[in-house]
Amino acid sequence: MKLEPKDSNFAEKVRASFARQPVMAFIGAQLATVAAGEVDIQLPYRKYLTQQNGFLHAGITATIVDSACGYAAFTLMPEGSDVLTAEFKINLLSPALGDYFLATGRILKAGKTLTVAHGDVFAVRQDEKKLIATMLATIVSVRQNR
Amino acid sequence: MKLEPKDSNFAEKVRASFARQPVMAFIGAQLATVAAGEVDIQLPYRKYLTQQNGFLHAGITATIVDSACGYAAFTLMPEGSDVLTAEFKINLLSPALGDYFLATGRILKAGKTLTVAHGDVFAVRQDEKKLIATMLATIVSVRQNR
Amino acid sequence: MKLEPKDSNFAEKVRASFARQPVMAFIGAQLATVAAGEVDIQLPYRKYLTQQNGFLHAGITATIVDSACGYAAFTLMPEGSDVLTAEFKINLLSPALGDYFLATGRILKAGKTLTVAHGDVFAVRQDEKKLIATMLATIVSVRQNR
Amino acid sequence: MKLEPKDSNFAEKVRASFARQPVMAFIGAQLATVAAGEVDIQLPYRKYLTQQNGFLHAGITATIVDSACGYAAFTLMPEGSDVLTAEFKINLLSPALGDYFLATGRILKAGKTLTVAHGDVFAVRQDEKKLIATMLATIVSVRQNR
Repeated sequence: MKLEPKDSNFAEKVRASFARQPVMAFIGAQLATVAAGEVDIQLPYRKYLTQQNGFLHAGITATIVDSACGYAAFTLMPEGSDVLTAEFKINLLSPALGDYFLATGRILKAGKTLTVAHGDVFAVRQDEKKLIATMLATIVSVRQNR
Repeated sequence: MKLEPKDSNFAEKVRASFARQPVMAFIGAQLATVAAGEVDIQLPYRKYLTQQNGFLHAGITATIVDSACGYAAFTLMPEGSDVLTAEFKINLLSPALGDYFLATGRILKAGKTLTVAHGDVFAVRQDEKKLIATMLATIVSVRQNR
Repeated sequence: MKLEPKDSNFAEKVRASFARQPVMAFIGAQLATVAAGEVDIQLPYRKYLTQQNGFLHAGITATIVDSACGYAAFTLMPEGSDVLTAEFKINLLSPALGDYFLATGRILKAGKTLTVAHGDVFAVRQDEKKLIATMLATIVSVRQNR
Repeated sequence: MKLEPKDSNFAEKVRASFARQPVMAFIGAQLATVAAGEVDIQLPYRKYLTQQNGFLHAGITATIVDSACGYAAFTLMPEGSDVLTAEFKINLLSPALGDYFLATGRILKAGKTLTVAHGDVFAVRQDEKKLIATMLATIVSVRQNR
């Protein structure tokens, strides 16, 4: 499908919003790519983000790919919109172990109110890149509070 | 359905595993109730866990209710098992604002390999308790590594 | 939550729309209960609705509970609205075998645009009623075409 | 990921099982492609499969793509296995209108017990092919009853 940004300023808008998400700094996530309908987020492996087996906790995996999907949707929204997740579903495919994690959000359908995104999370280690989780998310465009 | 724990030691097992999830201490989550097929987790509202509007990030909401569902499943598993989330879906119903959040995990079906859990998250403020998210999760029982 | 119908004519509206869903007659489904935020649909077991093991096909189970959730949402919508499913997730808990199936749709949150519903499917046989599937669905209210 | 069938007879096995799904004949669905980790199913548009607006009912859309995902998983399972859907989530992206529908099931991860599949549904009309729905499904391998 054609993914045409309605706001030419979309990349700066995403970067500014990301910077206002305290949880991203808290867990150590960083914005990597921002393009029309595409956002990637990176997260280094840290012991304090893990569950009882030393794998990245499923909820943290979900946190970065939910933000990647939400911001991918945000790149296509008009000025004055804000973005909220209505729901998502994630399948955890393999143990979340690696040097760092790469979460990718891509848009499947951008509607006026609802946007549907597909996200993946890869565990990266040296030259290996392994798919460890996949997400489908529904994102809502809301009028920005001023 | 009847929810009979196969391991009489289930509550201690859950508490020990929770203590070995570094991410729970990192975000400030605490184990509240542990009963057969039922686990509740509490999380105080903290600014550093929020997204761009000051709401608890959807991924953090997911983190506590995923753990509540996983540990609710764990209460019913035999000795020597460990627990992994295969997948979950979460609907965010209302802005996650409150003094603290209560995530409840309850078991719908406990199978030999797969357990299906239902989770809710409530935002609590003084005497108000509001449902802000709901989850369906599939949890796998795996043989514990020794 | 309080579930106040905005259209006092809601039950007739649901019955009329159900009658205009050809697939319901085709599979043999019937509307049972209609109340504010609650719709039940019944489906007799028929061999021609089954998969390779003689169980009701997961997609047919989904069909009746999706309609139950959608119509439960519809009971709370204002006049002139129509209802579309944005997405749903279903967990199949037990083999779908019984004399008939009862799908129940209940509303968790009724928003202006989005409604979130919870659905269950029970297999009924003589005096046994067994939960065989559970759903979370997101339903959209759209302006009716005239 | 590498998708190596463990049973060289996989295509015949899928075709035989599909033929034993009465619901497929009932709705008019046909098996199109069968390859390792890939199954496509076609369904002509029929008025009796629609909801109140003349669109294919979401549950019927789910029926064909659930079978496509399940059979895609089945192509990779060893002899003597049978296949059951544990759960799926589907997003409906656009009104289901077309001459016929094409459901595609593809494998993301084939585990010993659990397989995760991704499915799409396209509405086809003359030379237009439009994505109308997308699914993530978890499929279980079970020992075949004899």
